[in-house]
Amino acid sequence: MGELVLTTYDWVPEFPRGYVRDLRARWALEEAGLPYRMAYTPFDNRPADMLAHQPFNQVPWLTDSGVNYFESGAIVLHIASKSDRLLPADPKARADAVSWLFAAVNSMEPAIMPWFILSLSPEKDSGAMSIFAGHLQQRLDRLEAVVASRDWLAGAFSAADIMTADALRLADRLGGLSAHPACKAYVDRATARPAFRKAHADQMAHFAAADGLRAG
Amino acid sequence: MGELVLTTYDWVPEFPRGYVRDLRARWALEEAGLPYRMAYTPFDNRPADMLAHQPFNQVPWLTDSGVNYFESGAIVLHIASKSDRLLPADPKARADAVSWLFAAVNSMEPAIMPWFILSLSPEKDSGAMSIFAGHLQQRLDRLEAVVASRDWLAGAFSAADIMTADALRLADRLGGLSAHPACKAYVDRATARPAFRKAHADQMAHFAAADGLRAG
Repeated sequence: MGELVLTTYDWVPEFPRGYVRDLRARWALEEAGLPYRMAYTPFDNRPADMLAHQPFNQVPWLTDSGVNYFESGAIVLHIASKSDRLLPADPKARADAVSWLFAAVNSMEPAIMPWFILSLSPEKDSGAMSIFAGHLQQRLDRLEAVVASRDWLAGAFSAADIMTADALRLADRLGGLSAHPACKAYVDRATARPAFRKAHADQMAHFAAADGLRAG
Repeated sequence: MGELVLTTYDWVPEFPRGYVRDLRARWALEEAGLPYRMAYTPFDNRPADMLAHQPFNQVPWLTDSGVNYFESGAIVLHIASKSDRLLPADPKARADAVSWLFAAVNSMEPAIMPWFILSLSPEKDSGAMSIFAGHLQQRLDRLEAVVASRDWLAGAFSAADIMTADALRLADRLGGLSAHPACKAYVDRATARPAFRKAHADQMAHFAAADGLRAG
């Protein structure tokens, strides 16, 4: 098996810690039990060759024996394809898991982000906010019915739950799940998994150690 | 080979015609040269069992020998996996294509949609609009450099170009590519392909015929 190397920033400010998207990849790697190593790229002065790995000048990216993946969805799907723990073998369940993984990145997260961004801005009580808050509530209403009826989106826990639960964590961070208790319980269920806890602790420890290096 | 059935609405109002997301799936199917048939679900009175195919009560969905896919990204990726015309065989190019496909749904389209929605709302000159317009410009700036240097995102034309170009069409519809001529030229290049033209004409013809049935 080739070497898996996951790259994230060498340091980030306090606010994004615990939410930088290498978390999703770490979580998937821990669930899959695949060996990997971390690599770091400067947050402050981003080298020009970073664009060859990630064309939007962001993190994370993953290399698998030198083959480069960017976008957390593509990275998690690739990790999932290497393990029977993150994608079901049954064709119907597998199609469901891949569909839900895309729902996380193209239906749920895009409904959460505008609401999240405006919640932290001077526009938090604006007319635009009511448009995006309404859209988010519609999406959460649909998801609520699903996760009230089953623990995981595609039957067994899958890569779709990593992507969905991590997107929902952002909404939860600002109280956005308060009217959707089944969504909140789903996030709590997902983040109680040992693989999430390890991934989260590892990210937090890395950035905390980076503070020490900066101060030194 | 199993039967591919793509489901869209029986009718939609004028404004979304030519942009309903079954277009992406039709386009991919035409590029791949795979036989398929269309099926239709009511736009006005959506049957309860629609949620079993599409949990957000939207279209499209695709069944392949009875296996159900929803989310345009999942559908197009599945179609692409059945053809050598939409995903390169070389591992590096293939990883690049899948990564760009996720970039379309999770980096480009989510930057376009808030801008598009506010552009059509009373909030079009708001502070929120300037936040989202700025974010869209940043994304387009990065994409501009890429599509100025090559015709297609992953070397040869791929599923990533279907998803990216169709997302950019929404921005282009409201003049959002005016400061990004290479992005505009990329959309023009993609939509000049016979497979896009066939897919677009088929969708437009279907909805036009549905008007006739309603009027009758």
